[in-house]
Amino acid sequence: MVKLQNDTFLNALMRQPTDYTPVWMMRQAGRYLPEYKASRKTAGSFLQLCKSPDFATEVTMQPLDRYPLLDASILFSDILTVPDAMGLGLYFEEGEGPKFERTLREEANIQKLTVPDMAKLQYVFDAVSQIRKTINGRVPLIGFSGSPWTLATYMVEGKGGTDFLNIKKMAYARPDLLHHILETTAQTVIQYLNAQIAAGAQAVMIFDSWGGALSHNAYKEFSLNYMHKIVAGLTKNNEGRKVPSVVFTKGGALWLEAQAEIGADALGLDWTVDIGSARQRVGDKVALQGNLDPAILLSTPEAIDKEVASILASYGHGNGHVFNLGHGITQWTPPENAAAMLSAVREHSKQYHQ
Amino acid sequence: MVKLQNDTFLNALMRQPTDYTPVWMMRQAGRYLPEYKASRKTAGSFLQLCKSPDFATEVTMQPLDRYPLLDASILFSDILTVPDAMGLGLYFEEGEGPKFERTLREEANIQKLTVPDMAKLQYVFDAVSQIRKTINGRVPLIGFSGSPWTLATYMVEGKGGTDFLNIKKMAYARPDLLHHILETTAQTVIQYLNAQIAAGAQAVMIFDSWGGALSHNAYKEFSLNYMHKIVAGLTKNNEGRKVPSVVFTKGGALWLEAQAEIGADALGLDWTVDIGSARQRVGDKVALQGNLDPAILLSTPEAIDKEVASILASYGHGNGHVFNLGHGITQWTPPENAAAMLSAVREHSKQYHQ
Repeated sequence: MVKLQNDTFLNALMRQPTDYTPVWMMRQAGRYLPEYKASRKTAGSFLQLCKSPDFATEVTMQPLDRYPLLDASILFSDILTVPDAMGLGLYFEEGEGPKFERTLREEANIQKLTVPDMAKLQYVFDAVSQIRKTINGRVPLIGFSGSPWTLATYMVEGKGGTDFLNIKKMAYARPDLLHHILETTAQTVIQYLNAQIAAGAQAVMIFDSWGGALSHNAYKEFSLNYMHKIVAGLTKNNEGRKVPSVVFTKGGALWLEAQAEIGADALGLDWTVDIGSARQRVGDKVALQGNLDPAILLSTPEAIDKEVASILASYGHGNGHVFNLGHGITQWTPPENAAAMLSAVREHSKQYHQ
Repeated sequence: MVKLQNDTFLNALMRQPTDYTPVWMMRQAGRYLPEYKASRKTAGSFLQLCKSPDFATEVTMQPLDRYPLLDASILFSDILTVPDAMGLGLYFEEGEGPKFERTLREEANIQKLTVPDMAKLQYVFDAVSQIRKTINGRVPLIGFSGSPWTLATYMVEGKGGTDFLNIKKMAYARPDLLHHILETTAQTVIQYLNAQIAAGAQAVMIFDSWGGALSHNAYKEFSLNYMHKIVAGLTKNNEGRKVPSVVFTKGGALWLEAQAEIGADALGLDWTVDIGSARQRVGDKVALQGNLDPAILLSTPEAIDKEVASILASYGHGNGHVFNLGHGITQWTPPENAAAMLSAVREHSKQYHQ
């Protein structure tokens, strides 16, 4: 293995000293980049980009090549590879979100759900190996998965971003069935993330995109508990180094205290919470990753600079902050505005690390 | 004026003693009721229900007639009557949410925005008078409005439930334009709510349905400040009695401390926050209204009973709690499950008021 040349991101996740606040962007390989759109056109579809290690490597590298100030790369993939491997039949309709051919609502189908053979996800692990080789030690590579609750919402509802009425009905009327889905998915995610680590992922992140739709009690029972299990089952060290984990519940800033107890090294924050108050609430238990509203990248370099400075000032002096957006970068972002954000983070953050 | 026979709801909003915890349901006159669907069919459309005082009265009364345990009624209307009166051209497409014919994105159009003549909203005030007469003192009548931020999202985006990218771009790139929209809307809402009070509304509620999409700083600047102005401009007493106000930011439970400072008598809570911790955070500054996840009403009477009991226990002994859903009741709710919720509130709450 080649030596890692920039370990600022990994050190920040472990709350070790760094010279500046490291930064990466959720969905940094994405449609706001013309080079990404060109690759997607060549590949034919989003799913083809995910399923071909060559294409996944190509688009993972694009933001790194364009933005030298990025401190981490993230595997190009989709959280729905997991339910796809579990047999639900993922597909995308042009202009719409992801959908599944089958949904899990009938007891008989739910009882048949099992942990799939990881060979079905070999294309992901091949992509991780190939990306890692191509990055050649410039920055660390992040692997990732959806949380069991978030994956289950897609499996039960058949699509994302709904009122979650089917899965919530199941949660309250037949919690046993939902727990079976969540337990099976959690065991799958443990194997999936550990295989990504074995293939070369140097940190892992769990995306709980829809945990924020739950009540405080239901969040603990149906989402947080399963992320806790996953974190406990992760490979902790690889290549002689700690493999840090990040847990991110979008809309979950009310529950940071509970999230800080599950053993993850860092918590992701969306933009609704003031990062300084979040830091006070979690103390020195975890690092924090976030939390600029991605919509701000649609405004002006001056406005971006001001908001970046405000987040860094709110976090304040000391270690344990990874700068990021509070959610994925939108496709309408002018690429030069993303550059303005990265420069602002580097410029304004040094004073907090002296 | 006939004497109010049940003032439990008004007393709870003022944190005065009551014999039990009063309850009403957001969107209690709605599609889950077969009698509502029949009225809507006769009227021809949702907008016709809103614009005809006769129909608005008819559907407002339906849940009261079906559920004797309801402690309040709420004007049947829509928050978008206000931007409609401001000239944006509200319409509904079958199976989709509300839309506007015109959006406010160009500076010239924004500068032309003014407070409309309240005569354009006379149909709402007529509905309030007629409903009040028809209720005949059984329970109090709540008037309502959307918050300026929430109304502005519809005016700028042209529809609801988006990523709010156009309005957020305006917020960061041209805050002066957005503040003009918000200020004009706030002045309109003050007149609108005061006219509802003059027509007979005995409490008012401000729905900030999309405030939770903002960052903590932007929430204060673009949403909370304008609700503060509105609350300050409201008629405080009518018919020799206090007219209490409720402010509800969906997804805003992170910011309860700030909400408790704007002078509203009560805060609405969605289901993401534990109501007991919310009570600790706001102290004795405000009453709290909430907060059952409406999805729970799709489950079973047993599950509903358990969740209602848990919320009441979390709030605990004492005054200042109005039971409600954390958002509008869904159209898929079996009417008998709503009845189960109302019974559970009455049955389990008495012990906390002894």
